[in-house]
Amino acid sequence: MSDVPVSILIDDIATLVTNDPALGEGRVGAVEDAALVVEGGEVAWAGPRGRAPAADARVDAAGRCVIPGFVDSHSHIVFAGDRSREFAARMSGTPYSAGGIRTTVAATRAASDADLLARARGLAAEARAQGTTTLEVKSGYGLTVADEARSLEVAGRVTDEVTFLGAHVVAPEYADDPQGYVDLVTGPMLDACAPHARWIDVFCERGAFDEQASRRVLEAGVRRGLLPRVHGNQLGEGPGVRLAVEVGAASVDHCTYLSAEDVDALAQAAGRPEPTVATLLPGVDFSTRQSYPDARALIDAGALVALASDCNPGSCFTSSLAFCIAVAVRDMGMTPDEAVWAATAGGALALRRTDVGRLSPGARADLVLLDAPNHLYLAYRPGVPQVAAVWKDGVLAHGRP
Amino acid sequence: MSDVPVSILIDDIATLVTNDPALGEGRVGAVEDAALVVEGGEVAWAGPRGRAPAADARVDAAGRCVIPGFVDSHSHIVFAGDRSREFAARMSGTPYSAGGIRTTVAATRAASDADLLARARGLAAEARAQGTTTLEVKSGYGLTVADEARSLEVAGRVTDEVTFLGAHVVAPEYADDPQGYVDLVTGPMLDACAPHARWIDVFCERGAFDEQASRRVLEAGVRRGLLPRVHGNQLGEGPGVRLAVEVGAASVDHCTYLSAEDVDALAQAAGRPEPTVATLLPGVDFSTRQSYPDARALIDAGALVALASDCNPGSCFTSSLAFCIAVAVRDMGMTPDEAVWAATAGGALALRRTDVGRLSPGARADLVLLDAPNHLYLAYRPGVPQVAAVWKDGVLAHGRP
Ligand SMILES: [Zn+2]
Ligand SMILES: [Zn+2]
Repeated sequence: MSDVPVSILIDDIATLVTNDPALGEGRVGAVEDAALVVEGGEVAWAGPRGRAPAADARVDAAGRCVIPGFVDSHSHIVFAGDRSREFAARMSGTPYSAGGIRTTVAATRAASDADLLARARGLAAEARAQGTTTLEVKSGYGLTVADEARSLEVAGRVTDEVTFLGAHVVAPEYADDPQGYVDLVTGPMLDACAPHARWIDVFCERGAFDEQASRRVLEAGVRRGLLPRVHGNQLGEGPGVRLAVEVGAASVDHCTYLSAEDVDALAQAAGRPEPTVATLLPGVDFSTRQSYPDARALIDAGALVALASDCNPGSCFTSSLAFCIAVAVRDMGMTPDEAVWAATAGGALALRRTDVGRLSPGARADLVLLDAPNHLYLAYRPGVPQVAAVWKDGVLAHGRP
Repeated sequence: MSDVPVSILIDDIATLVTNDPALGEGRVGAVEDAALVVEGGEVAWAGPRGRAPAADARVDAAGRCVIPGFVDSHSHIVFAGDRSREFAARMSGTPYSAGGIRTTVAATRAASDADLLARARGLAAEARAQGTTTLEVKSGYGLTVADEARSLEVAGRVTDEVTFLGAHVVAPEYADDPQGYVDLVTGPMLDACAPHARWIDVFCERGAFDEQASRRVLEAGVRRGLLPRVHGNQLGEGPGVRLAVEVGAASVDHCTYLSAEDVDALAQAAGRPEPTVATLLPGVDFSTRQSYPDARALIDAGALVALASDCNPGSCFTSSLAFCIAVAVRDMGMTPDEAVWAATAGGALALRRTDVGRLSPGARADLVLLDAPNHLYLAYRPGVPQVAAVWKDGVLAHGRP
């Protein structure tokens, strides 16, 4: 017999956000005066405190709030270099353009494997400390066969949700032959990268890849067993959303500029067995001084909305989902409940995961104890670190209760 | 002889923000590859690393950034009660009104001294952990002679910068006799409160106190030896700014709605030996979904701008100056340099302090080590906790280098 407790009761939870799917998508299912039992890395029981079953050990939440760990379904944390001065220049008037990505490409290619891994690990740990327990990580700053493959190997050492984004921008060597770059991405680069990834992604935007090239990239990835997701409609209206819905992507990310047809398409795609989620990235619109997408209109139309960080050195260098929640509430018309759901259960849907983003029996015991009595505080106290402790698979991974 | 080191060298600072006043107001005076020597609680030396004098001990900044501790010149952290649900309702459409203050007044009056002190200490410690080394704290949720006096006593146990704000709103008992409440504030309440405060403040706004009442409050306070500061121009244009400049207030806070005459008055007041600072409170405009003040126009006109949190349970419950900097850069037209200066040296000016908000010889050794290579990261990485360590008067007060 081991002394390790088999089950742990987290007791005296003032507010427990369950996101119980039985309530329907978009509902946080908050239980007041609650408790939760963790066993075997999973949630064994969640409900009103008075009905909690016995357990081998007890953690005192002391009247604070427990939420599911954040599911950040969009990040680019495998890179090298520093673009803080480009940011400062942009804030003094120079607009953001996708071309700035090439700065990071040069630095990433020049970096050692060890440097890339150390940076990615540091940013993943930083995200974990802020409550992110599931993190998607993309390639996209290598843009050669070798540099994309090693970026994915690095990503695979910090997460299970790895996305091949060779089609981030056209590699500088192919500036005069974008078609040739798409041939590379869908041929030898895909061959080298597919074994290291779960997802195929493309930046479908003016200045990056047009509709036809984007479709080629996604279809080639799907033929190799990858699941599609799309960057689209960031800098203006375009074909990204319609293409994502057409190919059955799990998510289309940014959605800053949407036509009425795009909103309709996302609403219809929400009703499918495998929906296409509209993933909004408030930090990008914040850090590029763009206008914000209208999450209210999307939700009211029936679309599924997720919030993610897009943590990257160019357009948005935040790793804080709490910050994204606060901005989504302030500037995108989301209620605090909707925003918390979108950063947890919404992110899980955008990654086609049913085991995370909720705290009902059978889910992974990925949870966050907040220094706050309820989840509204994430939007109510913007910028204030409120994560007291984080558990991943039932094991304390940051802080202390 | 004691073993306590007499002088400490903080070495290998990638970027040192000095705010050296010799450079002129508004200039961060960043020194790259720098070092700093602390002795007797003060900055003894600051400059390029290669010229640093010897010291008894050494702290390794390891290529990170050091800035002066934030000077948060505006907070209301002596209160009880919870208004997170009011916040959530507001974010679903109910507009903010000053009347909501009365909710907190009822809870504050009902709270024990011990509860008020524990909450204020908790919030002051939270602010310290985020890099705030000087914090102004106001009364204003008591609104009786006894409750205002005990609020100031609590404030005095967490800070030296204490402000009497009996004129926050008219106390509910005086709803039908606002003149009578001003008589109380300028009479018996001032008698009881003046010994506990450095500052006199008034909320000069429609729904709170009009110009005449505000002038009475400020003049009565000044006669008792208090220094004036003003809340004004938060919810619409009004007399607050002009009154503040007229009475020689150290600061007029909010300044969200300014006429051209107000901007001119602030620009002229900036040239006085004892200027009136325009203190902007980005968190309030953020959390009440108001439009933002035009800091760019103020700075371009020659006004002095500070940034502060206004940490309070109603209109803005952030204690994060880093968050305020990020919003000021995104939405108020400030450059990252200007915003960092405004949250440090600007706050010091707004409190008529020359010993804090800068890191040049003779200043208090109140400093923050950031997990970042330069101060631009405060705006570049919104929401991300980046404070590695905080020193107050040369003593490590939070984190570790
Ligand atoms: Zn992205
Ligand atoms: Zn205030």
